[in-house]
Amino acid sequence: MPKISLKGQKMPESPIRKLVPYAEIAKKKGHKVYHLNIGQPDIKTPDVALNAVKNADIKVLEYSHSAGFESYRTKLSAYYKSHGLPIDVADIIITTGGSEALLFAMGSTMDVDDEIIIPEPFYANYNGFSTASGVKVVPVISTIDEGFALPPIAAFEKLITPKTKAILICNPGNPTGYLYSKEEILQLAEIVKKHDLFLIADEVYREFIYDENEKHFSVMNVPGLEENAIMIDSVSKRYSMCGARIGCIVSKNKEVMATAMKFAQARLSPPTYAQIASEAALDTPQSYFDDVIEEYKDRRDTLIAELQKIEGVKVATPKGAFYCIAQLPVKNADNFAQWLLESYDNNKETVMVAPAAGFYSTPNVGLNEVRIAYVLKKDDLIRSVAILKDALEVYNKK
Amino acid sequence: MPKISLKGQKMPESPIRKLVPYAEIAKKKGHKVYHLNIGQPDIKTPDVALNAVKNADIKVLEYSHSAGFESYRTKLSAYYKSHGLPIDVADIIITTGGSEALLFAMGSTMDVDDEIIIPEPFYANYNGFSTASGVKVVPVISTIDEGFALPPIAAFEKLITPKTKAILICNPGNPTGYLYSKEEILQLAEIVKKHDLFLIADEVYREFIYDENEKHFSVMNVPGLEENAIMIDSVSKRYSMCGARIGCIVSKNKEVMATAMKFAQARLSPPTYAQIASEAALDTPQSYFDDVIEEYKDRRDTLIAELQKIEGVKVATPKGAFYCIAQLPVKNADNFAQWLLESYDNNKETVMVAPAAGFYSTPNVGLNEVRIAYVLKKDDLIRSVAILKDALEVYNKK
Repeated sequence: MPKISLKGQKMPESPIRKLVPYAEIAKKKGHKVYHLNIGQPDIKTPDVALNAVKNADIKVLEYSHSAGFESYRTKLSAYYKSHGLPIDVADIIITTGGSEALLFAMGSTMDVDDEIIIPEPFYANYNGFSTASGVKVVPVISTIDEGFALPPIAAFEKLITPKTKAILICNPGNPTGYLYSKEEILQLAEIVKKHDLFLIADEVYREFIYDENEKHFSVMNVPGLEENAIMIDSVSKRYSMCGARIGCIVSKNKEVMATAMKFAQARLSPPTYAQIASEAALDTPQSYFDDVIEEYKDRRDTLIAELQKIEGVKVATPKGAFYCIAQLPVKNADNFAQWLLESYDNNKETVMVAPAAGFYSTPNVGLNEVRIAYVLKKDDLIRSVAILKDALEVYNKK
Repeated sequence: MPKISLKGQKMPESPIRKLVPYAEIAKKKGHKVYHLNIGQPDIKTPDVALNAVKNADIKVLEYSHSAGFESYRTKLSAYYKSHGLPIDVADIIITTGGSEALLFAMGSTMDVDDEIIIPEPFYANYNGFSTASGVKVVPVISTIDEGFALPPIAAFEKLITPKTKAILICNPGNPTGYLYSKEEILQLAEIVKKHDLFLIADEVYREFIYDENEKHFSVMNVPGLEENAIMIDSVSKRYSMCGARIGCIVSKNKEVMATAMKFAQARLSPPTYAQIASEAALDTPQSYFDDVIEEYKDRRDTLIAELQKIEGVKVATPKGAFYCIAQLPVKNADNFAQWLLESYDNNKETVMVAPAAGFYSTPNVGLNEVRIAYVLKKDDLIRSVAILKDALEVYNKK
């Protein structure tokens, strides 16, 4: 029997999805499961996007340009500019989700055994994309006690080797909800320029910021960083269009874009229907976003307030995105999460959380932490935290 | 300035798309360009697929299962079974085009510097996927004089090393139109079993076969090949839905599928709209295919008959797909193809062909060959070949 590859063996399983079989067991028992574990928002997709697809007059569903519709890229550039990001049409390649943008970024800048430094905890699939690209993740730990702020630059300096090609950040962060300050981005800009590295910024949650005195600062806004900065973006969260699978890779570095374009040509084109929806979504009225942000702010405030009432729970207040990391009074959050689904219920209801260990690359870190996504309605969040509180009491009395 | 990767530098440019700037020049001069160079059919997409998207009642455009909708996989399995392919739901992962299926297949079975043997000329993007995966393509030459039949098995044996992990075929072939016989597939099955290799078969043109006494024989139909066979499929050509970007990877090898699933989970899900279209497309009435096949058969017969009238042109009659390789009485088809666009016109019309050298991995092979896609209407094909004939006369008198 032929063997699968070492790369395939090393590919990580999704830490979010590996509890799914236990959730199915809970559901088969008739238990309701509150999903705090996934980043699938319940927010309605803008009508303007859905209607554009309904009304599209298609006779032959053709390939598009490998970089995506020119009309879409033109409109997207205008969108960025109106949001203060100096991004031209030539700086954009439309991709199949932010996922593909990251794969193109890694493929264009990194060879096998090259190293990429990522503050952890980080979006678990960065491990998958790195493994698929043959790239080694070098984590630098950010801590719940510091609210997951940028680790000291000296910690990065210590990790840089001749193999280091890039620093990757997620801003605002999944799973931490942390928003890097302008000063932190400028510190990162300085270090990547000093060491001739790329700074890859996953900014798919850019619009999800909940405090009036906080402002997102993009890597595309750093003067002099043009050759080093690569931005990853996606329509998934902005327009609650996760299923579209449309994102983009953005850079002013012409060589990076020409190289990414070769990867784009090999896979022919991004999906046509989803581009129609994404292009139209750019006409979404500001009131939609105002409502969405208000809703998420309310959810965040509710979730954090409720979590802080539980003894032994520590949580860093997220400034953006829609996740937080909570430290629980348990030894192993993996076991606890499984127990919640397999052996516990509160009036036939339980919660599903994502154990945070999967978001760390360093072994044995974050074992007592979980990631909670606040993508549920306020009442459901309140009920979920009440269940969590009761469950922790029951679990710790066992 | 940070450097791009060696992998990125090695990524091939699309041989089909690199003439595009010259086509744009021709069009700017007001010349009509007949596109014999691309595999974008002009056939109408089935209404049942287009209407399913129009009528879809979507409120939130959500992620789907990473393996694709279960309903789609169930129906697809039934489709395969009704076509004599014993493929179960568990043997299928829906991918973003056949492109992604190939990337998953390579990632799951091959490590960096592993080797994959491919009969050439082959679909040019196999080079791109191999480079992206860090895999080395080892070509085995098939010739126009043999009609691009499978090279002798001894030729494969000679190329197998400890690094060889798979043989990749495209059946029926892009760019050759060759259809492997049952005997040829059985020969390949024997050699992969003997050497413990995977046999990856790109069967996206399965339905496009033009002779009543010819029948497609799938790698999924070889008894005892279950652990070695991986099938790549796509809706792009079958339903003229290239822009959907939906394909699948199929295998009975549980380890391969579990590994491919990890790659699938990292990128979350295939596009939702396109899956709705693809699932509905399975209800396309047989009359649609009958008409399409009749149309292509007519186009093929027309194209080959016309080409054979040109002195000095040699062409292998394709048995399937919608391409053929033609040998032209020129030294360098690359120069000729560029000249056709840049310097030639016939009553303000010209043709665009794909130089075949890009479909060979061996340097300096196929230099006087072009790939012609017969995706144009019959009259346009006749006119195109007339232009080609005139152009060859002019070019060779220069």
